[in-house]
Amino acid sequence: MFFIINLLNTQRVEQFVKKLSDLGERKAIQLITSILTQDTSVVGLGDDCAAIDLGKEYLLITTDMISEKNHIPQEMRPFQIGWFLCAINLSDIAAKGGTPLGLVVSLGLPTETSEQFLKELSRGLNTCATRFGTTIVGGDTKETREITLSGTAFGRVNKNEFMARRGAQIGDVVAVTGTLGKAGAGYYALRHNITDRKICRFLFEPWPRLNEGRILAQTHHVTSCMDLSDGLSSSLYQLQEMNQIGVEIDQGKLPISPELRSVAKKIKNLDVPAVSLHFGGDYELLVTIPPTVFEKTKKAVGKKGVSLYPIGTVTKTKKILLYTGSDTSVLENKGYEHFKKNITW
Amino acid sequence: MFFIINLLNTQRVEQFVKKLSDLGERKAIQLITSILTQDTSVVGLGDDCAAIDLGKEYLLITTDMISEKNHIPQEMRPFQIGWFLCAINLSDIAAKGGTPLGLVVSLGLPTETSEQFLKELSRGLNTCATRFGTTIVGGDTKETREITLSGTAFGRVNKNEFMARRGAQIGDVVAVTGTLGKAGAGYYALRHNITDRKICRFLFEPWPRLNEGRILAQTHHVTSCMDLSDGLSSSLYQLQEMNQIGVEIDQGKLPISPELRSVAKKIKNLDVPAVSLHFGGDYELLVTIPPTVFEKTKKAVGKKGVSLYPIGTVTKTKKILLYTGSDTSVLENKGYEHFKKNITW
Repeated sequence: MFFIINLLNTQRVEQFVKKLSDLGERKAIQLITSILTQDTSVVGLGDDCAAIDLGKEYLLITTDMISEKNHIPQEMRPFQIGWFLCAINLSDIAAKGGTPLGLVVSLGLPTETSEQFLKELSRGLNTCATRFGTTIVGGDTKETREITLSGTAFGRVNKNEFMARRGAQIGDVVAVTGTLGKAGAGYYALRHNITDRKICRFLFEPWPRLNEGRILAQTHHVTSCMDLSDGLSSSLYQLQEMNQIGVEIDQGKLPISPELRSVAKKIKNLDVPAVSLHFGGDYELLVTIPPTVFEKTKKAVGKKGVSLYPIGTVTKTKKILLYTGSDTSVLENKGYEHFKKNITW
Repeated sequence: MFFIINLLNTQRVEQFVKKLSDLGERKAIQLITSILTQDTSVVGLGDDCAAIDLGKEYLLITTDMISEKNHIPQEMRPFQIGWFLCAINLSDIAAKGGTPLGLVVSLGLPTETSEQFLKELSRGLNTCATRFGTTIVGGDTKETREITLSGTAFGRVNKNEFMARRGAQIGDVVAVTGTLGKAGAGYYALRHNITDRKICRFLFEPWPRLNEGRILAQTHHVTSCMDLSDGLSSSLYQLQEMNQIGVEIDQGKLPISPELRSVAKKIKNLDVPAVSLHFGGDYELLVTIPPTVFEKTKKAVGKKGVSLYPIGTVTKTKKILLYTGSDTSVLENKGYEHFKKNITW
C-alpha cells in the first residue's frame, strides 16, 4: 500500500479498486491493448515484436523491462544484468527471423549505485550486443528507488521471412531449438547452494537464438514461432490462444538439458519434467512446421548447426495435452507470469 | 543505502566506491558511452535520437524513462502520466525533423496499482500518440516497487532533412519555436497552491513539436536542432560541448510565456528570467540558422504556423553568455540534471 498512498491522492484511491495483483499480467496487457488504437499497417500486436511495414521489409521492435524485485537475484553480477537485458530483447528479434539493427536502453538506477556497477552493467550490455553483431545506439539514465532497466531492440526482416506467432496449422510438428531446463537448473542450483558458475550462466547469460532464427526463417517452412522466455507451458498456451488450436506434447521427447539432469542428482525430489515444462528463461525458439517438410527442414537447418527437437503436434482440440507414456492429461499453465508471481526470485 | 545493501553482496559493496550521486547524469552517460562499441554507420550518438542508416532515410530511435521519485508529482493524473511519457519521446523525434512510426512502452508498476490507473495511463499514452499521427505498437508490463515507465519512440526522416545537434556555425542565429517558462509556470503554480488547470497542463501535457520539426527540416536551413526538455541553459551548454562554440543570449529577447508572467504576479520574488532560462519541460525546439537566411526562414515557416523567436547568436568564445541589457555575464548551467538533483519534484 505504500506506493499507492505515495502516488495517488485520496480521491484517486477511493475510486480505484481492482489491483494489478488481481488481474495478472495477461489481463493487464489485454486491458491496455483494448484501449490502444491499432494501426492496421502494423503486424504483430501480441507477438514477440511489433512489425512495421517499411515496404519490402518489416522493422521489428520489441521492449523488455527487468527490475530488482523480480528479475535480479543477489547472485547476478552487474555484467550479467547487462547481458541479460540485451539478450532477452534480442531473443524477440530472433523469434521473428530478424537481424538486429541496434538497441536503446533506459537505466533507472538509485543514486547509491556505484560507478563500478555502471561500468560492469555497460560492459555486459555491450558484450552481448556486439557478440550478436549489433550495438547499443543510445539510452537514458534516470534516478529510481530500485534498479529498473528497460531495453528496446529493433531489427529488420524481409517480409517473406517474417515468422509470426500466428500461423500454426493442425497437424504441424511442434519443435524447439535446444534443450529445456538450462535456466531452471541454474535457478535450483542457486537455491540449493550448489556452486556451479557454468550452470548459473544459463540462467543469467541466456543466448538469443538469432542465428537459429535467421536460418529457420530462410527455410520458409516455419508456420509460427515464438521464444521460450516464459517457459514451455506458458508459451504453448499463448500459441493456443493466438491460433485457436491445441497442442499435444510427448513428455518422452522433451530434450531435457544435461545441466538439469546433473543438478537433479544433487537435489532431492526435483521434478525434472516439471522444470523443463514450466520454468522459463531458456530463450530457445518454439516453432511449428508442417509434418510433410519437418524432416527435410530439420536436416537442412542441422547442416547449418541448428538443432530441432520435435516435442509434439498441433491438434484441433484447443487443449494443451501432455502424453507421459502411460497417460494423457491437460498440461497446467504454470509459466512465469508477473504480478501474480507464480515464480519469484 | 537501502538499495545497495539489498542489491549487492558484501564483496561487491566493498569494491565499489564512487556513487552515481557523485557523478551526475552527464558523467554517468560519458562513462557508459566510453564503454559501448560505436557503430560508425549510426549517426547521432549524444543526440536526441540515434539515427540508423536505412539507405535514403534514417531510422530515428529514442528512449526516455520517468519514475515516481523524480518525475511524477502527486498532482499528475494517470492520463497525464501516459501523455507525458509519450510526448517526451515524440519530442526527440520532432527535434530531428522526423515523422514518428510508433512507440513501444515498458510499464513498471507496483502490484497495488489499480486497474483504473492502468486504463487512464493507457488512455493518456494513446491520446497523445494518435494526436500526433502515430500509435503505441507494443510494450511490456513488469512488477516494480515504484512506478517506472520507459518509452521508446521511433520514426523516419530523409537523410537530407535530418537535423543534428552538431552543425551550429559561428554567427548563426539561435532561436526557439515557442515561449519559455510554460512548464515552470505550472510547477510554481502547483508549489504555491495556485489552482490553474490550464497552466498545469503545460507542465504535465507538453506538446511535442513534430509539426514544427518537419517544417523546419524542410527548409534545409537549420544547422543544428535539439529539444528544450532540459531547460534552455542546460541545452545551450550541450550545444556548446557538441559544437565547440559559444552562445550569447539576449535576455530581453527571451519569449517569456504569458502563463509565467501571470503566475509571477501571484508569487513574491519569482525570478521570471531565471525560470525561463533554467526550468526545463517546455519541449520547444532550439535551432541555429545562418544569419543570411534567418529572416527568410522565419517568414517561410511563419506562413505555415511555426513561430521562431531569435534569442541570441553563436559565438567563437566557447562560453555561454547572457546579455541583460546592461551587463554581459556567464550564464549558469542550472538545468535539470538527474542524480545531482538540482531540481526535484
